[in-house]
Amino acid sequence: MLDALFRTDAVREIFSDAGRLQGMLDFEAALARAAARAGLIPEAVVADIESECRAELFDIGALARGAESAGNTAIPMVKALTARVEARNADAARYVHWGATSQDAMDTGLMLQLRAALDVLDADTAALSDALANLAKKHRRTPVAGRTWLQQAAPITFGLKAAGWLAAIERHRMRLQELRARALALQFGGAAGTLAALGNRGPDVANALAADLGLPLPDLPWHAHRDRVAEVATTLGLLVGSLGKIAKDVALSMQTEVGEAFEPAGDGRGGSSTMPHKRNPVSAAVVLSAATRVPALVSIMLSAMVQEHERGLGNWHAEWETLPEICSLASGALAHVVQMVEGLTVDAVRMRDNLDITHGLVLAEAASAALAPKLGREAAHRVVEEACRAAVEQRKHLRDILGKDSRVTAHLGVADLDRLFEPENYLGVAERLVDGVLERRGQRVPPRQ
Amino acid sequence: MLDALFRTDAVREIFSDAGRLQGMLDFEAALARAAARAGLIPEAVVADIESECRAELFDIGALARGAESAGNTAIPMVKALTARVEARNADAARYVHWGATSQDAMDTGLMLQLRAALDVLDADTAALSDALANLAKKHRRTPVAGRTWLQQAAPITFGLKAAGWLAAIERHRMRLQELRARALALQFGGAAGTLAALGNRGPDVANALAADLGLPLPDLPWHAHRDRVAEVATTLGLLVGSLGKIAKDVALSMQTEVGEAFEPAGDGRGGSSTMPHKRNPVSAAVVLSAATRVPALVSIMLSAMVQEHERGLGNWHAEWETLPEICSLASGALAHVVQMVEGLTVDAVRMRDNLDITHGLVLAEAASAALAPKLGREAAHRVVEEACRAAVEQRKHLRDILGKDSRVTAHLGVADLDRLFEPENYLGVAERLVDGVLERRGQRVPPRQ
Amino acid sequence: MLDALFRTDAVREIFSDAGRLQGMLDFEAALARAAARAGLIPEAVVADIESECRAELFDIGALARGAESAGNTAIPMVKALTARVEARNADAARYVHWGATSQDAMDTGLMLQLRAALDVLDADTAALSDALANLAKKHRRTPVAGRTWLQQAAPITFGLKAAGWLAAIERHRMRLQELRARALALQFGGAAGTLAALGNRGPDVANALAADLGLPLPDLPWHAHRDRVAEVATTLGLLVGSLGKIAKDVALSMQTEVGEAFEPAGDGRGGSSTMPHKRNPVSAAVVLSAATRVPALVSIMLSAMVQEHERGLGNWHAEWETLPEICSLASGALAHVVQMVEGLTVDAVRMRDNLDITHGLVLAEAASAALAPKLGREAAHRVVEEACRAAVEQRKHLRDILGKDSRVTAHLGVADLDRLFEPENYLGVAERLVDGVLERRGQRVPPRQ
Amino acid sequence: MLDALFRTDAVREIFSDAGRLQGMLDFEAALARAAARAGLIPEAVVADIESECRAELFDIGALARGAESAGNTAIPMVKALTARVEARNADAARYVHWGATSQDAMDTGLMLQLRAALDVLDADTAALSDALANLAKKHRRTPVAGRTWLQQAAPITFGLKAAGWLAAIERHRMRLQELRARALALQFGGAAGTLAALGNRGPDVANALAADLGLPLPDLPWHAHRDRVAEVATTLGLLVGSLGKIAKDVALSMQTEVGEAFEPAGDGRGGSSTMPHKRNPVSAAVVLSAATRVPALVSIMLSAMVQEHERGLGNWHAEWETLPEICSLASGALAHVVQMVEGLTVDAVRMRDNLDITHGLVLAEAASAALAPKLGREAAHRVVEEACRAAVEQRKHLRDILGKDSRVTAHLGVADLDRLFEPENYLGVAERLVDGVLERRGQRVPPRQ
Repeated sequence: MLDALFRTDAVREIFSDAGRLQGMLDFEAALARAAARAGLIPEAVVADIESECRAELFDIGALARGAESAGNTAIPMVKALTARVEARNADAARYVHWGATSQDAMDTGLMLQLRAALDVLDADTAALSDALANLAKKHRRTPVAGRTWLQQAAPITFGLKAAGWLAAIERHRMRLQELRARALALQFGGAAGTLAALGNRGPDVANALAADLGLPLPDLPWHAHRDRVAEVATTLGLLVGSLGKIAKDVALSMQTEVGEAFEPAGDGRGGSSTMPHKRNPVSAAVVLSAATRVPALVSIMLSAMVQEHERGLGNWHAEWETLPEICSLASGALAHVVQMVEGLTVDAVRMRDNLDITHGLVLAEAASAALAPKLGREAAHRVVEEACRAAVEQRKHLRDILGKDSRVTAHLGVADLDRLFEPENYLGVAERLVDGVLERRGQRVPPRQ
Repeated sequence: MLDALFRTDAVREIFSDAGRLQGMLDFEAALARAAARAGLIPEAVVADIESECRAELFDIGALARGAESAGNTAIPMVKALTARVEARNADAARYVHWGATSQDAMDTGLMLQLRAALDVLDADTAALSDALANLAKKHRRTPVAGRTWLQQAAPITFGLKAAGWLAAIERHRMRLQELRARALALQFGGAAGTLAALGNRGPDVANALAADLGLPLPDLPWHAHRDRVAEVATTLGLLVGSLGKIAKDVALSMQTEVGEAFEPAGDGRGGSSTMPHKRNPVSAAVVLSAATRVPALVSIMLSAMVQEHERGLGNWHAEWETLPEICSLASGALAHVVQMVEGLTVDAVRMRDNLDITHGLVLAEAASAALAPKLGREAAHRVVEEACRAAVEQRKHLRDILGKDSRVTAHLGVADLDRLFEPENYLGVAERLVDGVLERRGQRVPPRQ
Repeated sequence: MLDALFRTDAVREIFSDAGRLQGMLDFEAALARAAARAGLIPEAVVADIESECRAELFDIGALARGAESAGNTAIPMVKALTARVEARNADAARYVHWGATSQDAMDTGLMLQLRAALDVLDADTAALSDALANLAKKHRRTPVAGRTWLQQAAPITFGLKAAGWLAAIERHRMRLQELRARALALQFGGAAGTLAALGNRGPDVANALAADLGLPLPDLPWHAHRDRVAEVATTLGLLVGSLGKIAKDVALSMQTEVGEAFEPAGDGRGGSSTMPHKRNPVSAAVVLSAATRVPALVSIMLSAMVQEHERGLGNWHAEWETLPEICSLASGALAHVVQMVEGLTVDAVRMRDNLDITHGLVLAEAASAALAPKLGREAAHRVVEEACRAAVEQRKHLRDILGKDSRVTAHLGVADLDRLFEPENYLGVAERLVDGVLERRGQRVPPRQ
Repeated sequence: MLDALFRTDAVREIFSDAGRLQGMLDFEAALARAAARAGLIPEAVVADIESECRAELFDIGALARGAESAGNTAIPMVKALTARVEARNADAARYVHWGATSQDAMDTGLMLQLRAALDVLDADTAALSDALANLAKKHRRTPVAGRTWLQQAAPITFGLKAAGWLAAIERHRMRLQELRARALALQFGGAAGTLAALGNRGPDVANALAADLGLPLPDLPWHAHRDRVAEVATTLGLLVGSLGKIAKDVALSMQTEVGEAFEPAGDGRGGSSTMPHKRNPVSAAVVLSAATRVPALVSIMLSAMVQEHERGLGNWHAEWETLPEICSLASGALAHVVQMVEGLTVDAVRMRDNLDITHGLVLAEAASAALAPKLGREAAHRVVEEACRAAVEQRKHLRDILGKDSRVTAHLGVADLDRLFEPENYLGVAERLVDGVLERRGQRVPPRQ
């Protein structure tokens, strides 16, 4: 009941039982072709094997029962495939799964699934990058309170906030590209990683298999070396962290007392069963949920790396559901952030109004910075700090307190103070930073077409 | 495809979509009864509401789509239930979900699921306790190498090892009992926890509801106070840790080079797709997989406790799949350990043989302890340490080296040394400890019938 | 540089190098007494051993170097202690560490440290309970917005919020009490857990040792069964989760735009290096930091439970710094929450003002509940939902919109509506719930004196 | 007492209090130079500021107390530095920390520490790579049992095992190189990230600062975007996973019943307090301890990424001790693996002997592979599986059973069977794979000089 909320259809399908099975069957079909090319099995049997390598032909419930006693999914798959091929051509059945071990089929199938999932993530991070770029551009001059430790600190622009989100996403896109090069790789080693069952033709089969599946051929089989799959997890963990940060910022902005930016509502989205006025930040909740879960799931993948000798006991098993879950939750969170950013409602008026609620305190640093060249940084800080305290106690505007302090008026006139207390005049290089991020993004070669 | 391997059918069913839905519907039916008893809704509508509170009447796919936009499972459930009741009796539909909030239904439903899951775990830990007690009793005098840091250290009995497992499981059974008292509780507070929508009858309804469902009435609603559910997670986390320890011990004992104890094989269980001679420790793998995953899942439940104000944002959502997963994996691991222990094949001959492979080194402490009263603890340690080094270098039995050392022979004769080097003579109070554990277990009031 | 910020002095001292060493030395002294009582070593040597069992006599740097090659802290401690005793009385040196193994000293020492740390936590949770009870009592009728999903939902009282915090802390106090009974236990088993080096006097020594140290004697040694220490971790993990929840609520209340409650400031506390007006929620930050860290540290303790045979390899080592860190961070977070709650500044006026900013929306449920008995729950919900939308669009008060809706005015007059929109009239049983929590707390037997 | 065991001196020093302080002071000194270059502060004051930027001049205890009330380490550092500079030159004191915020100093200081720590890790991974290459080369033809699920599976060479370790370490070295490019970056943004306090000269100062410190200038300040520091954590997490795998393999090989490879002993290393014959795998324990702890610590860094607005509350604080701890534990584990591999004692005779203990079963796949072209893969598997069962039951060599099976003898003669059952004849492409890894390593440009 929660799949549609937490996950995208595309990635759920990739990691469904059928998806998992098809990954292994793609391996088996490609293996038959490669072994035939290497002259190890008759060319004539290939088509009969290939034609049975379609997930929809199999009874997944039966395979699940088989997995229960075999301890993995490949053994019942190979048995069922062999039986199907045998029914078609008894001779062909003799050549199914030639020279491979269960983990070869499982890991290579996983790699095909991961490649497909990375395609989805690439497309969605690209869409998010576009949406964030639009947001940053549109609001590059929109003043909003910069907040540190959940307190108003000094004005920034909403575009700068969006540009910060964007720059992080661009870094993640780069990480995802580099990940492909390192993480995706054929798994093919046979029982103990020596390809011994293939005599001296192992490398030929491995080469042909890698080329057929479009997966890089690694230096050597990596059955118990899991840094590749663990790196998929860590890279998505980093991505989800940044998605969580965006969602947290939006959720805080949506608070009743802040009211500056809102995720899109639409058709009953975020309603409450009891409170007719509520519009709950559903997407933010989903993304924050992923950001709470994925770090721990990543730690499972790292813990599971300590695999014994040539094949791990239990730790390998610990990956089987965990990595797909990480991919699914990451993809779900990403899709929600895309929706959130594309449909974000920004209330620039409220943003500007909120900059006034501290009666000038949010520009205390501006005053301090203006006084620092005259009084020194620490002395200026102290003068303004006292004035802030007085402003709060006397419920006056900071400008008025400062306008009566001779240490200040010796250096700043009324007009100076008025100018100082316009947030628009204390935005530093916010716009320039936004432009820099947008420009740098434009220069990047489009990552994939 | 992996559910049957990693989880028990019973607990999977409890936490299935239908199970989750039924939990919420049980709440709604009980709420109708309680509200009628308190005079808030007409007694006459109760039956019409109750009769629709059956999960099999609902379209779970539609509810899932509803959950996607609502952000939780209760809102679409309440809508669908109201529609169903309306079709039966328009008046009755007006009283569905009276005074409750979504989370009341979800959390109380969860509590009903957890209670059922704890019933399964209680039964299976009781079965495991029986099996371990049999094992401990049977092998209370069977010598086996005690191993520390994966090295043979000194002899123990296999019954002592089993008693250690048993004592841990008995502690977990006690924890599970105490957990029920603290963790299970009705959730019923309405929108913000004040039961305001029920006027002054809130407490009456709450009382009746608690009694109806057999759940304790808590001091106050606990929507954003998640220690109860988090403690279910931590308690199962502790249990899984001990299950992992048992599985690790068995897996190490099954090593080709050790060969002392084996999980049951039977009908293709643990076969290899390539290696006809292999009998893989499938149950151990499943249990160790759970022991790798559950700690991190527990950390999610703890992280998720920091829920904002009267209802959390995202962190509450993070619980929804995590706690059921912990229960399911714990139950799966437990069932595998029950199987493993009930069918454990113990090779006492190999255990005894393995005590000889160090040529007496495994009894070095016995020699050292025999010499300590004569030479002092440290001097005795040094004498025996030198002898051990000599035994290894000269590939001789430690007894023979010691038999030629005058510092030793001054105190120990040939017969003394022979007696010292019988493992059976250096088992300390192993049997007595086993008996103590068994006796203490027998004295415990049977926890539940 | 961060210790004073994140940890209490008391618990840091308990887990300092000196504290760890003293714990082991206390074991050694008690062991000498117990072995003498059992007649295994001469009564005459006891005093000489005891008098050297003081941490301040040892060179901790030298022990650290010893630990580096020995792989644990007990081996160099025993060596150094033996040397010290020997310098005093060569005969006494022969009886140091009689019949024990390194882990006996380390684990029993740890238990003594944990007991001391639990004393500190008991005292501080008691203080927190008092402070929260005062807060709950004082503000039992102070209206404040109840917030769900970070949105105003419906009014509650601030006392109810405090009572929710209090009830959680009371549950944790109960958990801490029960933890002592289960977790604290003597460790004494010798090399492989059979006490073989003590001949048939092992149980006598164990009994005497347990009595001497005031630690329960367990069924059997638990060198590789770590549920006891892991449960200390999980129990503190639960506590820290609730502390984080309190800190999060306070931090959100301190937001510039909310301004309802504040942790105490005082003497430069929470100042900013650049922003003179800032008062950062330092305590909240510390507590939330602990709540981010401790869950993962707990998962380490759970992962580490899978210890091999009679002594774990690496996983035992993983506990050594982790459990002390959990205790220290928990104690630091607790002390900050005590400070925070004891000195909390509550702005009841701002709380009341904030209830007005939604122009009546926060009382939408009140309207809906008042209409439900007339229109049915769902229809009432729809009518009010429409009115909410209109109120937002037309920027009017919800009361005014409803006052013009004939479906509403058919049932509610102007005075009814006015009454409905007073938050004070929609607090349900908030006060009664507060009273219940306070009363239940008063009834509890004071946990320890 | 455990630092020397778990951490390297070099990395401990980098992350000591003094190291942390010096990192911030290096930032302050460089800032003074950069601000002077940009004409914002007088060139004349720079030397007076610089000369006070030395950690050894400060009272770390006093700074710790300051951090307790300030909530971070930079505020007391800036105060103390300003006071010191003032004592030297009152005018210069006015320009300390010009335009920066606390986090600028803390994060940039951290980056300098991380760069130094990565230098140590680069050197040690290079050393490990050398040691592993030697091992792989030396034992490229040394037969050893390949083990899957902790069972002997089929022969491999010990060089192939070493080459698998090596290939993983080479991938980590590549990751560490790429990490530098992405993770290291100047932090400089002022209070809210706009550099507003520097007027229009912010970018000039930032540029000069980046150049001075040799840190890349990022697109924009990243105070609340923590993917850079989190990626340091994840990359080291991956490394530690592979180190744990190596340590686990060695520890399993050191088991009394296996005895194939041993970490170096030497001078009391790994002794036992009670068992004179023990040589505990101390380095393996340390590495496995790190592999148990670091994954969870990484999850803290990922969880902490969800930082609010322009500066996080609590989550930022959660990084302060966690990332240094990850670096320290990783470096300690790495140093232990270097020691372990450089000094590894390999017992090739025992490796060969262990290949015989299954009476041919370890070559079952060889038989199966030889029969597959004749009988088909599945039928061959079945024939050999039956023979394996018979061999176990009758306690005979598998070769003898097969030699009496007409389905086998129809295709394989006595000489064929004899040849089949020599492990040396069933090593597949093990040597070629080793050579490939070594060659590929040789071709890599040396990463850093």
